[in-house]
Formats: sequence, structure tokens, C-alpha cells
Amino acid sequence: MDIASILGLIIGFGSIAGGYAMDGGNVGKLLMASAFVITLGGSLGAVFACYGMNQLKNLPKMLIEVLIKPKSTIRSTMDYLLFLSKTARESGLLSLEKLISAEDPKKKTDPFLKRGILMVVDGTDPDKISDILSNDIYVFEQNRSQNIQMLDSFAAFCPAFGMVGTIIGLIQVLAAGMEDPNALTKAIGVAFITTLYGVLLANLIFIPTATKLRSRLANYRLEKEMIIEAVCSIRNSVNPRLLNEQLSSYLIIEGKNKTKASKDQSDNKGQMKK
Amino acid sequence: MDIASILGLIIGFGSIAGGYAMDGGNVGKLLMASAFVITLGGSLGAVFACYGMNQLKNLPKMLIEVLIKPKSTIRSTMDYLLFLSKTARESGLLSLEKLISAEDPKKKTDPFLKRGILMVVDGTDPDKISDILSNDIYVFEQNRSQNIQMLDSFAAFCPAFGMVGTIIGLIQVLAAGMEDPNALTKAIGVAFITTLYGVLLANLIFIPTATKLRSRLANYRLEKEMIIEAVCSIRNSVNPRLLNEQLSSYLIIEGKNKTKASKDQSDNKGQMKK
Amino acid sequence: MDIASILGLIIGFGSIAGGYAMDGGNVGKLLMASAFVITLGGSLGAVFACYGMNQLKNLPKMLIEVLIKPKSTIRSTMDYLLFLSKTARESGLLSLEKLISAEDPKKKTDPFLKRGILMVVDGTDPDKISDILSNDIYVFEQNRSQNIQMLDSFAAFCPAFGMVGTIIGLIQVLAAGMEDPNALTKAIGVAFITTLYGVLLANLIFIPTATKLRSRLANYRLEKEMIIEAVCSIRNSVNPRLLNEQLSSYLIIEGKNKTKASKDQSDNKGQMKK
Amino acid sequence: MDIASILGLIIGFGSIAGGYAMDGGNVGKLLMASAFVITLGGSLGAVFACYGMNQLKNLPKMLIEVLIKPKSTIRSTMDYLLFLSKTARESGLLSLEKLISAEDPKKKTDPFLKRGILMVVDGTDPDKISDILSNDIYVFEQNRSQNIQMLDSFAAFCPAFGMVGTIIGLIQVLAAGMEDPNALTKAIGVAFITTLYGVLLANLIFIPTATKLRSRLANYRLEKEMIIEAVCSIRNSVNPRLLNEQLSSYLIIEGKNKTKASKDQSDNKGQMKK
Amino acid sequence: MDIASILGLIIGFGSIAGGYAMDGGNVGKLLMASAFVITLGGSLGAVFACYGMNQLKNLPKMLIEVLIKPKSTIRSTMDYLLFLSKTARESGLLSLEKLISAEDPKKKTDPFLKRGILMVVDGTDPDKISDILSNDIYVFEQNRSQNIQMLDSFAAFCPAFGMVGTIIGLIQVLAAGMEDPNALTKAIGVAFITTLYGVLLANLIFIPTATKLRSRLANYRLEKEMIIEAVCSIRNSVNPRLLNEQLSSYLIIEGKNKTKASKDQSDNKGQMKK
Repeated sequence: MDIASILGLIIGFGSIAGGYAMDGGNVGKLLMASAFVITLGGSLGAVFACYGMNQLKNLPKMLIEVLIKPKSTIRSTMDYLLFLSKTARESGLLSLEKLISAEDPKKKTDPFLKRGILMVVDGTDPDKISDILSNDIYVFEQNRSQNIQMLDSFAAFCPAFGMVGTIIGLIQVLAAGMEDPNALTKAIGVAFITTLYGVLLANLIFIPTATKLRSRLANYRLEKEMIIEAVCSIRNSVNPRLLNEQLSSYLIIEGKNKTKASKDQSDNKGQMKK
Repeated sequence: MDIASILGLIIGFGSIAGGYAMDGGNVGKLLMASAFVITLGGSLGAVFACYGMNQLKNLPKMLIEVLIKPKSTIRSTMDYLLFLSKTARESGLLSLEKLISAEDPKKKTDPFLKRGILMVVDGTDPDKISDILSNDIYVFEQNRSQNIQMLDSFAAFCPAFGMVGTIIGLIQVLAAGMEDPNALTKAIGVAFITTLYGVLLANLIFIPTATKLRSRLANYRLEKEMIIEAVCSIRNSVNPRLLNEQLSSYLIIEGKNKTKASKDQSDNKGQMKK
Repeated sequence: MDIASILGLIIGFGSIAGGYAMDGGNVGKLLMASAFVITLGGSLGAVFACYGMNQLKNLPKMLIEVLIKPKSTIRSTMDYLLFLSKTARESGLLSLEKLISAEDPKKKTDPFLKRGILMVVDGTDPDKISDILSNDIYVFEQNRSQNIQMLDSFAAFCPAFGMVGTIIGLIQVLAAGMEDPNALTKAIGVAFITTLYGVLLANLIFIPTATKLRSRLANYRLEKEMIIEAVCSIRNSVNPRLLNEQLSSYLIIEGKNKTKASKDQSDNKGQMKK
Repeated sequence: MDIASILGLIIGFGSIAGGYAMDGGNVGKLLMASAFVITLGGSLGAVFACYGMNQLKNLPKMLIEVLIKPKSTIRSTMDYLLFLSKTARESGLLSLEKLISAEDPKKKTDPFLKRGILMVVDGTDPDKISDILSNDIYVFEQNRSQNIQMLDSFAAFCPAFGMVGTIIGLIQVLAAGMEDPNALTKAIGVAFITTLYGVLLANLIFIPTATKLRSRLANYRLEKEMIIEAVCSIRNSVNPRLLNEQLSSYLIIEGKNKTKASKDQSDNKGQMKK
Repeated sequence: MDIASILGLIIGFGSIAGGYAMDGGNVGKLLMASAFVITLGGSLGAVFACYGMNQLKNLPKMLIEVLIKPKSTIRSTMDYLLFLSKTARESGLLSLEKLISAEDPKKKTDPFLKRGILMVVDGTDPDKISDILSNDIYVFEQNRSQNIQMLDSFAAFCPAFGMVGTIIGLIQVLAAGMEDPNALTKAIGVAFITTLYGVLLANLIFIPTATKLRSRLANYRLEKEMIIEAVCSIRNSVNPRLLNEQLSSYLIIEGKNKTKASKDQSDNKGQMKK
């Protein structure tokens, strides 16, 4: 469970309801089915018109996925890559095939890494390996970005259709005239509530979901780039110690303080040499 | 027929009309010819002033085209490319000419692919083939993007001219004064209805059309890039198995789950080697 | 004459006036000299403050230039390039000098093309030719883009100064107080009319002019890139048939349907080989 | 202490309070707890929903960090690099190890520089050194940019939730009706005060913090690029005088007048040669 | 003196005051000290919070600098470069040192050019010269862009703090209630006048200053790129005639009509060859 997302929703909606209650407002009066239908229905229609059925299928999946915290595997992947590098040095590149193909039911190997190592074992040219794996990331990223754009679209449509609801409500007021103040109040209520829904849906649901998935995608790319770098180094029989040096930059993704990490790194290395 | 586009329009307009009716609004009162003339006519005029006649001809074509679902040919193209690769390996590059030139009335070969293969048969340098085909995509994409920009312009002009209608309506109110409340109501009606039309036209018609065509263009580019990669590999007599490895990244475009696909891939390959 | 620009202005202003008249509005009341002075004068002042005198001189030129339809010369340029390529093959590179220098009073040779061919005749290195000509496009494009940005600035300033007029008008209302409703109506009239002028000037004059000139600049770049490609191929004695293949991508600029064009191309080539 | 940041807050809030007081306004009436809860709480919730816990931890750190002025070390780093370059020339590359590893309790060596020099001592290939160190900057910059984006998000959410507060306040007014003018005034007060808080928080706290940290990051990158350039030059045994020439461009970061600096540079060099 | 800037301010402010007076408005009533304090003071505070003291020092300098028209030296620089090229051809590269070091009290040599030529004399590798000089431009441009961004920030803050003043004014109205219409009018006056000041400061002062300095920076870059190209050509002993051909593209910066210039160029060259 991604606690930050849950906390965010609680803090966000809680603050608004709380601040409203502090001034004596009645939160229940903010709930109105027709406003919800106009804002969310209109936005959903526009999103449907924007994207193909093929892509729309991913929309509910993404809204759930964002609530699940991905396990950061950067540290263990790095250790595993260094282990592979040492094994390759000691027992030759071919020894990696058995290692990578061994199915460990508890801990699955990243298929991307596996694919890279199998190409190393096949003796594929390192530039070719890098090309194929980079292209893999590129295609994945293109595809993923298009999906995240659905959330951006949703975030842009919600306030627009909130405004549509407001305009419709005001037109209704004009049609009814000044004679029935009850209808007038009700209609203006619809007007403002749709705007409220539009802004809240965009700012507490769709913008955060898009931002979080985009940020995870950026980390995904960095992690895969680390794997490409390591796989090519293994193919080129680079010294495991130099590989460690190379990969240490990526530790920052896990939230370790960079400057410290790289200092430790250098210190360790300094000592190592003594 | 692109069901998502049709569904989108139904959901979008339906939600707004439905939500409006839930509050007792009369949808018929939202229809007004003069508001339509100002909003759509003004926007059309601005779009005409923005683009050349040559380009404007494509506008109606694009609005229809977006309703037709393009058949995804990535899987069959990939199979065909692998088939060509194997044939080239077995019977030589020249054997491809007959294959590619054979007119199959049921299934037409992609002219872009055909052009590439004919250059391979001609013995053109692989870098030259890549240059020519990439340039082909580049020119096509430039041209297509300019056309899609017409829809972006439309989407930007509609709310602007909706606002123009609103301003004009309000000015009319002022000229008429406070004496005739009937004219006042009517004029403010025009004002808000033009804004409504502007926002709806932009958000349910032009933005979705532009988004969908741009997304298809991105897939078009990915598919053509796959063909270039494959054609150059065929020219360089790359092993068909390695070509399969290379192309597998592109399967994700068809909506197959990437991680799974690439895992299967690796597994298959792993088994293949046993 | 660029018919689309003229049509655009007629459709745009006509729709607004027409829609306004349909509701019984008097178009004459929308004309007001002081509103015009504030909106256009303020914007012009800001544009003057933004750019140097040297650049401002081009502003009126561009507003006229956009009304003149440029003749598309891509087809004839391509034919001429292929003719030069064949001549160079048959009679040697030096034969091109006479050809390119011959002054034809009816049809002038593109000085950019002439410059390239004269460098070919001089035996300049092909990479150097490409560098010099590319740099020529780069400098031209930089300079031209800066000029088009003046129109973008105008388009951004007009609504801002329209709003300035509205604010000033409202302040005047407040100063006059509620006692003289006539002055109040007049002042609010100024307010809304300046906003109207700002939006219309931006959306029917300056945005369209900038868009059209920018789109022509993009085509200019594509055409010049085609010339560079062809000139370098001539310098490298590339086969005229391959050059034709290379250049065919550019036909799309003339509005020919790409897929069809490239298909014909391939077909022709297929037949040619029989 | 970064005086500009402190001064900025004083000038900003002071001017607003001062200008308000000049017109006889009572600043105390602008303080309202519920408005603060809605604006800041809502924004905080949205930011929580946008980013992972791992990244959110950096948020308070960044708000403090921006108040501390970083010491510019570009001049001393440059001198140190030139000193290392001369030492390497005179006593060989290996002599650098002792120099760089010597712990000086008063002045710590930049771990990034140390890491580069240790690779030089190890005899790592210069291209490899450049790759590893550039990648280090790249990963750091990616990570840092993501953190600064949290502040951008905050700056974008504050006005949105300020508006949410305004809308809620207005809805409350409608619910209360026209009967109790006291409640009406209070509610509209909430409405405008939340908008005010949203705009002030964004424009005086979050936008400035993001801008300042982004600007420091740009300087950080320039400084590290200088180190990479120098380390590679030392590895390649470049003449210290030429290295000085190379590095002099970077002096501008310290705020020295560029043209003057480079002139002095050239003059000195001119004299040096006499 | 940059006449366009002065003219711009006169036309801009004059049109607004003139148009206002045409409708009988009293310009004096638009002046209000407290509105000025809130708008400009608030923006200044925000800019202080955004940037370091080191950078803020350049702010007044830039506001004055924009009023001074820079002398275009592109033509004379080009002539000087061609003169250096010919001299180098005739008397050898070393002869340039004396030439470039000679101090001419009337006309100072561009230190950037001088630096390049001294490296040529030193026999530095042409790629190295290009690297060092390009890096010089890059660092200068980075630094300069950051300074110009201060003006962009100012332009963005002014309307925001104008709006802050408006909101504060309206809150004051509410606090005072409907009982004192005089205070009400005065307070709404403050409200609108701050918005007016914000929009005018942004659109007539800060946006134009930023635009003009950015445009000059672009020309600066083009001129320096021309120098790099020429210096490297001199180092490589390129034919002065070819250098002239190369540099002619840059003449367009001076406002000469490009097509004509390049035609003359070609014509001249055509004649030269006869």
C-alpha cells in the first residue's frame, strides 16, 4: 500500500471538510448527484473520445496501481549485477546462463535483466545488446507515457466540465427568471458545486495519479539504464570494482544522501587500495 | 468504426443533458442558432486565416477519419518481416523481390515496407536505406503534425469566440438598458450559450480528435521504425532469431502486457537453447 | 492572393456580425475610436518596447506578405534537381556551371540552389557544402523566427491591453459614482468593447498571421533540406534513380497523398526493373 | 544565511501590509485559521498524493536549505584543479593519490572531485571517467529535479485550493440565504481570504524556493562539468596553461564580469608570452 | 539610445492615457501610492526570494542596459576576420599575434575573437579551440539566461500581486460593510488600480525588457558562432574566398534582405570566376 497516496487523500479532503466545518458549514450540502454526473460523466466522455478502446482498458488499472507501493529493488539489483559480474570474471560468461535461468520461486529475476544476460551468453555484440535493450525501454516508455497522458487529459477535462455545469446552471436561472428565488438558489448551487467537483477531482485524484506514475516511470528508466550499463560492462569483461564505481551513482534513487554515498564510496575505495 | 469515439460523444453529451435534466433543466432551451453561428463561424474563420487552402482541404477528412478505427497490423507486419528475414537467409536477398512484388488482392503490402525491401534488393547501402526511410517518416510526420495543429487551433479558437459572443451579448444588454428585462434575459442567454458551445466544441470534438490522431501518429512512427530496423537487419543478414529478439519490444503497441511479453520471450528463448 | 486568409477574415467577422444581427444587435454600436486607441496603441507600444527598430521595420511587410500566396515550387525544383543530376552524370560536374549561371528572364533559379551547385562545381568537399548550406538555413530560420515572434507578442499583448481598457473603464465608473447612469453605461461600454477588440485582433489577425508564416517557414526548411540532400548527392555522383527515390518523400509537401505517392513510386520502380 | 531570501520575505509581506495600512486596512482581519487549514492542508494533501514517502521526506529539508547561502567554491576549486594539474605534470599522475587522500580537517575536498582524481590515479580510460562522472551528475540532477518538482506542485496547488475555499464559502452563502447578512459577510470573507492565502503562499514561498533551488542546481551542474573537464585534461596530461584557458570561462558563475575576465585572461596571456 | 524602447513606452502609455481622456477620464485619478507599494513591492520581494544577492545586483543594470542600443559589429567583424584570414595565408599564422595584440585606442578588438586568434597562434588543435570557445558561449549564455529569467519572474509576479491588492481591497470593503459608500468606492478603487498597475508593469516594462535582452542574446550567440567558425577556418588554412562564402549567411543579422544578399554573393562569385 502506498501510504503517501492514502494519507494525501485523507489530509486533502479532511482539511477542506475540517476548515469548512470550522466556519460552521454543513459538508452534507456539498454532495449532489447531478453535479457529479455532469463533471465526471462529461470528462469521461471526452477521455473516451480522445483515446482508443485498447488504451482505455488501462485506465482503471492505473488508478488502482497508484495505490500500491512498488518495492524498490535498485539495491538488490545492483548487488545481483555485481555478483554476476564477479561470476563472469571467475567462471566465464557461459556460466551466467545457468545462473540466470534457475527459477527461484521466492524471488523472480527481472525479465529485462534476464533478457540482457541471455544475449551476453549468446555472444551478441555489446552495441547490439545496448541498442536492443534501449529500444525496449524506449517503446515501453512511449507506451506508458501515452497511458499516463489519459490521466493528464482527465485532469484537464474535469475543471472544464465543472465550468460547463456552472454555465448550464446559470442559464437555467435566467430561464426561470427572478420570480422563484428557491429555484434560483438551487440552480446556482449546482453551478458552484460542479466547479468545486471539477477542481477537486483534478487536483486530488487525476493530477496526483499522473504525477506519481510519471515519477515512477522516471525511476524505472533509471533502473533499466543501470542494468543496460552493467550488462554491457559484463559483456566487455569490465573489472567488477570499476563496475561498482560506475553503478554507485544510481544509489541515490533509493533516497540515500548522494554526497554521503559517493564519499563513502571514495573512502572505501581509498582504503581498499591501501 | 472507432467505438470509443462514438461512446465518448454519447457519454459526454449524455451526462451533461442527463445531469441537467436531473435538476429539472430543459435541454431544448440550450439550442440557439445565432450562438452556433458566432462560435463555430468565428472559429472557422480564424482557422481559415491560419492555414493555406491546400491544408484546409484535409480538415473534413480528418474529422471523419478519426471515427474509423485503424486496423493494428503490427503483429502481422512483424510476422511478415520475420518471414522475409528467413527467406533472405535461405534463398538470398534477390528472392525477396518476387515475394514483395507479388500483388495479393486480399492483403496489400505496406508500400513503405515494399520500398525498403526493393532498396535491399537493389543492394543499396544499409545506412542509405535507413536515411531514406527515416527521412520519409520525418517528412510525413512534419506534414501530418501540421494538419493536426489545425485541430489544436480549432480547439483554442472555440472558447475564445464563445467568449466573444458573451461579450457582444453583454454589450447589447447595456445598449438596451434596464428597461426591457425580456431583452436583457434573452441577450444574457446568448452570452452564456456561446461560452457553453465554445467549451463543449473544444472539449468534446476538437481536443479529442487532435489527441486521437496524434496518438495514432505516434504508433505509426513506432511501427515504421520497427520496419526500418527490420529492413536494415535483413540487408545486413542478421540472424532471424536475433531479429525476433529485437522486434519483440514493439509488441507492446498492440496492448499486450510488456513485462509478460518480454518474459515469455526470454522463457521461450531459454527453452529454445536447451 | 492567399484566398484562405481573405476568406478567413470574411467568415470570421461575418459570422460574428451575422450572429449578432440575428439577435437584433446593432453592429455600428460596437465601433468606438477610443477603445481602438487603447487596445491597438497599447499593444503597439509594448511591441515597440520589445524589439529593435531594425526588426520592427519588418512588421508591416509581414502583415502584407501573409496575404500573398507563395507559389509552391517543390515539384519543379525536384525536376530541375533530377535534370542537374542526369546532366552531371552524362557531361560531368563542370557542365553544371554554365547551366546554373544561364540567366533565364522568365524563370529565376533559386539563389540557394545556385549557391550549392556553384560550390559543387568548385569541387568543395560535400560535408563542407552541407555545413555551409545548413548554416544558411539555420541563420535564416533564426532571423525569421524572431520576426514571427513579433506577431506572437502582438497576439499576447492585444487581450492584455483590451483588459487594461476594461479596468480603466470600470475605475472611471467608480469615480463617477452611481449618480449618472448614462456615464456609467458609456464607461462600461468602453470596458467591454476594448476586451472585444483585444480578443478579435489577437484571434483573427495576429495569431493567424503568425501561424501561417510559421507554417510557410517549416515548408521553406523542408524544401531547402531537399535541395541540400540533392546537391550533396550530385557532388557524390549518386545514381539519379536513387536520388529520385530519395527526393520522392518530399512530394507530400505539395499536398499529394503520401501513401499513394510512395506507392506509385514503388510501383513505377518495380516496373522499371522488369 | 541567504540574505536575499530573508529580505524578499520582509519586502514582500511588508509591502502588502504597508500598502494595505496606507489605505486604512486592518492587517489583523486578514488572519483566519480555517482559511489557512483549507489552503495549506488541501495543497499538502495533494502533494502527498503526488509523491512517494521517500521523496516527501525531503520537503522540509528543502524549505530550510533554501535559507542557507551556499558558499561559492568555484574559484578555489579552479585553483585546486590547476594545482593538481601542475603537480601531475611535475611529479606524475600517481602523486595525486596522496594529495587527494590527505584529510584536511579545515577544508574538505569535494567527494566528486576526489572520485574523479582517484580514477585518474587508477589509470581509468579518460572517456570512461567522463562517462561515469557525467552519469553521476545526470542521476543526481534527475533526482534533485524530481524533488524541486514537489515545490512546483505546491505552487500550483495553493491557488487551486485557495479557489476551492472561495467556492465552498460562496456555496455556504447561498445555503444561508440573504436573511443573515452577518453570516454572508463572514462567509465571503473566508472565500476571499483563502484565495489571498493561495496566491501569497505560491508567489512568496513555493515559487521562490523552487526557482532558487533550480538556479543553484544549474550552477552545481556547471561547476561539476568544470571538474569533469579538468579531470579529463589532467588524465590526458594537458598543458596547465591551456587548462587555465579552458576553465576561465567558468569564472562568470561567481558573478565576475565575463568580458572583463576574459580580457584580463587574454592580456595576461599576451604578457606571459613576451 | 534605443529609440524603439523609448518610442514604445511613449506610444504605450500615451495611447492608454489618450484613449482614456477621449472618453473624459481623469488620468490623475489613476495614480495611487499604496497601489504602487503593494504591486511593485510585493513583486520585488518575490524576486528577492527567488534569486541570490549575486544575481540581483544585475537587475538595475539590465533595466538601464536595455535602453542603450548596442552597435551592430557583425559587418566590421566579418571584414576583420576575412582580413585576418588573408594575412594568415600570406604571412603565416604567427603574423596574426602582432596584429591582434596591437592596441588600437579608437577601436577595441573583441576579447572573444582575440582569445580565439591567440589560441590559433599557439598552435592549439582546431577542435580544442572550437570546444573552448563554444564552452565560453555556453557558460555565458547560461549565466545571462538566468539573469533574464529575473525579468520573466518580475513579469509573472506583477499581475499576481496586482490581484493580491485587488483581493485585499475587496476584503476591506466587506469588513467596512455597506454602511459607508465612500470607503467602499475608495477600496474598490485600490482593488482595480493594483490590477491595472500589475498588468501595465508586466506588459510595458518587464516583458519588453526580457524580450529585448533575449533577442540580443540570440544575436550575440550567432555573432560568436560566426567568429568560432572563422577562427577554426583560419587555423585550418581555409581559402579566404570559401570563408567569405561561409560567413555570408550571417549578414542577415544586420537586417539585410537575405535572399538578395545571397544572390549578390552568388552573382559576385559567378563573375569572380569568369
